[in-house]
Amino acid sequence: MPPNALPDDLLISAKDEVRIRQHLALVALGERPADRVLRVGRLLDVHSRIWLTDQEIVISGRRIAYIGPKGSYPGQAENYHDEPDLAAVPGFGEVHKHIESSHVTPEWEAALVLPFGNTWTCEASHEFSNVDGANNLQFWLTARKAGSPQKIFPLPGSAVPPTAYEWGGGYFGHDEQQRFMTESLAVAGLDEVMDWPAVWNPENPSYERLWGMIEATFANRGVVEGHAAGMRDIASISAFAAAGMASDHEAWTTEEVLDKLRRGLFMELRPHSLPEMIKGLIAAGISDWSQFALTTDDRSCSDTMKMGATDYNVRLAIKAGLAPEIAIQMVTINPARHMRLTPWVGSIAPGRYADVVLLNEVETLSIAKVWADGALVAEGGNYVGPQPKIDWPQWATQTINIGRDITGEDFAIPAEPGRQTMQAALLRPFHWDDSFIEMELPVAEGAVQRDETRNVTKFAIVDRFSGEGKISRMFWLGTGPRTPDTALACSMGHDKHNIWVVGSSDAAMAKCVNALRTTQGGWALVREGELVATVRYEVGGLMTCRPPHELDAEMQRLYAEGEKIDWMYEPTFSPRWFPGFPERLAFATLTCAPWRWVLVAPTDDIPQGFVNVQTGQTHPIVW
Amino acid sequence: MPPNALPDDLLISAKDEVRIRQHLALVALGERPADRVLRVGRLLDVHSRIWLTDQEIVISGRRIAYIGPKGSYPGQAENYHDEPDLAAVPGFGEVHKHIESSHVTPEWEAALVLPFGNTWTCEASHEFSNVDGANNLQFWLTARKAGSPQKIFPLPGSAVPPTAYEWGGGYFGHDEQQRFMTESLAVAGLDEVMDWPAVWNPENPSYERLWGMIEATFANRGVVEGHAAGMRDIASISAFAAAGMASDHEAWTTEEVLDKLRRGLFMELRPHSLPEMIKGLIAAGISDWSQFALTTDDRSCSDTMKMGATDYNVRLAIKAGLAPEIAIQMVTINPARHMRLTPWVGSIAPGRYADVVLLNEVETLSIAKVWADGALVAEGGNYVGPQPKIDWPQWATQTINIGRDITGEDFAIPAEPGRQTMQAALLRPFHWDDSFIEMELPVAEGAVQRDETRNVTKFAIVDRFSGEGKISRMFWLGTGPRTPDTALACSMGHDKHNIWVVGSSDAAMAKCVNALRTTQGGWALVREGELVATVRYEVGGLMTCRPPHELDAEMQRLYAEGEKIDWMYEPTFSPRWFPGFPERLAFATLTCAPWRWVLVAPTDDIPQGFVNVQTGQTHPIVW
Repeated sequence: MPPNALPDDLLISAKDEVRIRQHLALVALGERPADRVLRVGRLLDVHSRIWLTDQEIVISGRRIAYIGPKGSYPGQAENYHDEPDLAAVPGFGEVHKHIESSHVTPEWEAALVLPFGNTWTCEASHEFSNVDGANNLQFWLTARKAGSPQKIFPLPGSAVPPTAYEWGGGYFGHDEQQRFMTESLAVAGLDEVMDWPAVWNPENPSYERLWGMIEATFANRGVVEGHAAGMRDIASISAFAAAGMASDHEAWTTEEVLDKLRRGLFMELRPHSLPEMIKGLIAAGISDWSQFALTTDDRSCSDTMKMGATDYNVRLAIKAGLAPEIAIQMVTINPARHMRLTPWVGSIAPGRYADVVLLNEVETLSIAKVWADGALVAEGGNYVGPQPKIDWPQWATQTINIGRDITGEDFAIPAEPGRQTMQAALLRPFHWDDSFIEMELPVAEGAVQRDETRNVTKFAIVDRFSGEGKISRMFWLGTGPRTPDTALACSMGHDKHNIWVVGSSDAAMAKCVNALRTTQGGWALVREGELVATVRYEVGGLMTCRPPHELDAEMQRLYAEGEKIDWMYEPTFSPRWFPGFPERLAFATLTCAPWRWVLVAPTDDIPQGFVNVQTGQTHPIVW
Repeated sequence: MPPNALPDDLLISAKDEVRIRQHLALVALGERPADRVLRVGRLLDVHSRIWLTDQEIVISGRRIAYIGPKGSYPGQAENYHDEPDLAAVPGFGEVHKHIESSHVTPEWEAALVLPFGNTWTCEASHEFSNVDGANNLQFWLTARKAGSPQKIFPLPGSAVPPTAYEWGGGYFGHDEQQRFMTESLAVAGLDEVMDWPAVWNPENPSYERLWGMIEATFANRGVVEGHAAGMRDIASISAFAAAGMASDHEAWTTEEVLDKLRRGLFMELRPHSLPEMIKGLIAAGISDWSQFALTTDDRSCSDTMKMGATDYNVRLAIKAGLAPEIAIQMVTINPARHMRLTPWVGSIAPGRYADVVLLNEVETLSIAKVWADGALVAEGGNYVGPQPKIDWPQWATQTINIGRDITGEDFAIPAEPGRQTMQAALLRPFHWDDSFIEMELPVAEGAVQRDETRNVTKFAIVDRFSGEGKISRMFWLGTGPRTPDTALACSMGHDKHNIWVVGSSDAAMAKCVNALRTTQGGWALVREGELVATVRYEVGGLMTCRPPHELDAEMQRLYAEGEKIDWMYEPTFSPRWFPGFPERLAFATLTCAPWRWVLVAPTDDIPQGFVNVQTGQTHPIVW
């Protein structure tokens, strides 16, 4: 087989692996010429956590064929690149990241995060799965197929629908997961199992669906990723591990980390309380960090541009006292091993993709250059790799399916005739109590009214899947605009990603939603009756296929307009909920544990959309 | 689902996993009662390498449902077992062991090794695969199916046939491996890829067969185990890793270990030169041992009774200076993670089998009791667990298929008419040179003769698969009996497990082979014309289904008779080849790297059976 007949080596398949590795073995032996040799002053062997000096990385195609001391390769190569002053570490991996939260499509995610060293990502595809389940795998592999140097390993969402009380966009059960796992070796397993009541409770209506997905994952030797948010009692943690969950990324305290680690969960630490956790773990005497990874989970494009990507997490861990080499292992070999992806990523070793981060300085993780797929892709923080232009198909770009104009009346909450006030059920963002909040609210013109003086506004969910624009609405506490005739809407609304809208007038709310119908998703802000800002997420209503800086510029305009508004505030779960522009409302309709009462799009059984997702209990929004 | 409808939890399947884990989660939460609680004074959390004090392990069926401080379990249990003075560590695992080398069937292997803490084994099924490929998986799962508490994870042999120059007993290619990987989740991957020329060299006649097995293993997310014996140059090691091999267990020196480790191979260290390697690795500054395991590879029943099983390897590592906790990780979490078996074995954690080794003293790894499958199976070195009686079927017990009496003439090596001497090609055990040895040997009665004065005797391979008893014969140097009319034969003859026989007379050689036809395998020793000892391996010609002590007694009788014989000796590869009873001749017909010239059963292409397995070159045995 002549080398020019080799597979393009973009998507991973067993058949291609054979041909690629047959070739690599001959290159390693010097029987066939190599393409490039990258010579480095130092190289971190993450298998032993030892630095090697003056090494050469021999590359063929996108992969590493040979590693050895400088000058030792017995074969010929076309090009030599000398970096005697730089230290090479493996490309960084995300063990659990929602690229949807970057709000750029995968080809632009590559341009965004590769300069920060993030060459591979286990994509927690919970969001796109819930928007278009059928096309989920195709969606995540499209950019790679078009030549993007970032490796994306998609894990199908376990919560599609998020709970049995939601609908639209997709349905994943045993057969769907079986198909995903057999369609691509890039599918490493099942994305974060978050609907804990559906795991432990045989009466839960999602029980069969979810265990069907777990079964298909086990059957294909995949990894079942966990999500044990707020789970701190050791009986639940034991049950979670016993149920087959392999990991958790939701721990906030050292004690929680240790309790989960001891029960066999691979711990994926997010930056949120990372310094405290790292310090605590060091103090607890941890000397074996092989069951730990660092990961991002969710980070917006704008935040990534400011903070960094995976490298930010590593730097945070180093500052908290962890040896840089261990912190680097936590974004390289450890997550690769956990996800069973070591044949492809996680170390600078033969057979793996030639993904190398070149550091000026190890202690500060100062990144000089990044190689991916055997070529330079970033230098001095700038992306210089290939940028495929993808003409995303209609199934990706037409996902706001609302076949009618929304009006202010859609958001009215009718009062019982003759009532001056009515009792209302209220929520606030990140309200994780067993019961909702109750308040007496005024009635006017036949409808129950907001009460700005008590921080009460209106919040609604508009279905974007059926075409009918079904709407659930209720009163919320401590969020949304106090400024009159003002509203904010977004088509990213975890977990189901219907449109959420919060506003001080029903008309402003309608105007926002109609704006999103036009843009096919994103953000819309109406201030005092005028549409003052939109941000376009035209792919899946979650992402844009534009360069990160364009999206960021739009977001900055939104933030600037948002600053002119008086936003209500009510503290709830710190540090998840802050005063000011309520961007995190996008996460306030989550339904996974520890959420209880939530507002979902209306169903036959739950016509008002107000349901306790842990118990299935429903309640009127006013009475 | 009532608990009594639960699967028996012996063989692993995704369907059963679901039902078992659904149940375990409810037990962990205290919603269903547990069976047993084992309370221990200390427990080693191998995920963090930290000891926890006063813990309880809550068991349901064969699994762990809950782990927590003593008294913390919220549910009810039927029985409580208190071991306040003992330290609990996870059941030990073998990452690479040939149970065939114990020469007892799996149900007796359990009785042999469980008292030493070895509760699970990745079975390198190279030998039985080569005897009866079609029934290989069934063979390895039979004992477990019958209730044996030892977990066996069979890896189908990659070398079936061992090289393209051998035949009989089975053929494994892509389709066979695909079937194995889908038939049972217990199949972790592909057993040690040892035919290196068939991996790197596209011209090798086993190339397609072997790469087909690798493809099927990748396709099913399995682990491709390596075997890089004698491979010390970094180009070959790079090529080996690039080809997709995940491990090696053949390293002898610290430098070799480091060179392989750095290229991404998971290092499975055997006891052979373990103290030197451990000391060397510590001196080299290794502080991360997560890519290391300890393993046995081959150890006879008699040696195991004397030395121990996995525990021997751990003790050796501790004595060489490794912290006991790290050494224990190297036979628990590390190999389980490498083999992707963490949902079942490797740690004392919920969801895993309740396999616990209870130590009197950690530093000396003094084993007081062993639990497996949630019950006590060994105490004070004695096996007290279930002992299934298996009536092994005919395909297992009738594998010496030689449909004729063998006679002394079968071993004659005819001379050319009129010659007084002839040149002969000689081998000696563990002769790894590129060329064979040449010697001039006398002719008498029309045949080329042995020469005891120069340490030259005769060695033959008798095919036991075709029914025809095809025979290859040649002269060997430095092995076999000098005592007249004496011969030794065995049906275990790596890799193909035809019968090998070495003797000072052709008649004695024939008598030995005929004895093995009667016993259906094992050893036969003829001294001065009399059959003085046999050892029966009636299952596959490799193992016996009798208690270890019975086999050992037979072996001791064989050794005793063997001591009465004058054995030739010629040093070759120390420490693999010793003076005295030539037991290791069973390994002297290996064909994997670094072997070159070997004697195999005759084929149409190689009628004399003398072939260089690296190149395919053949040569006459006399000329």
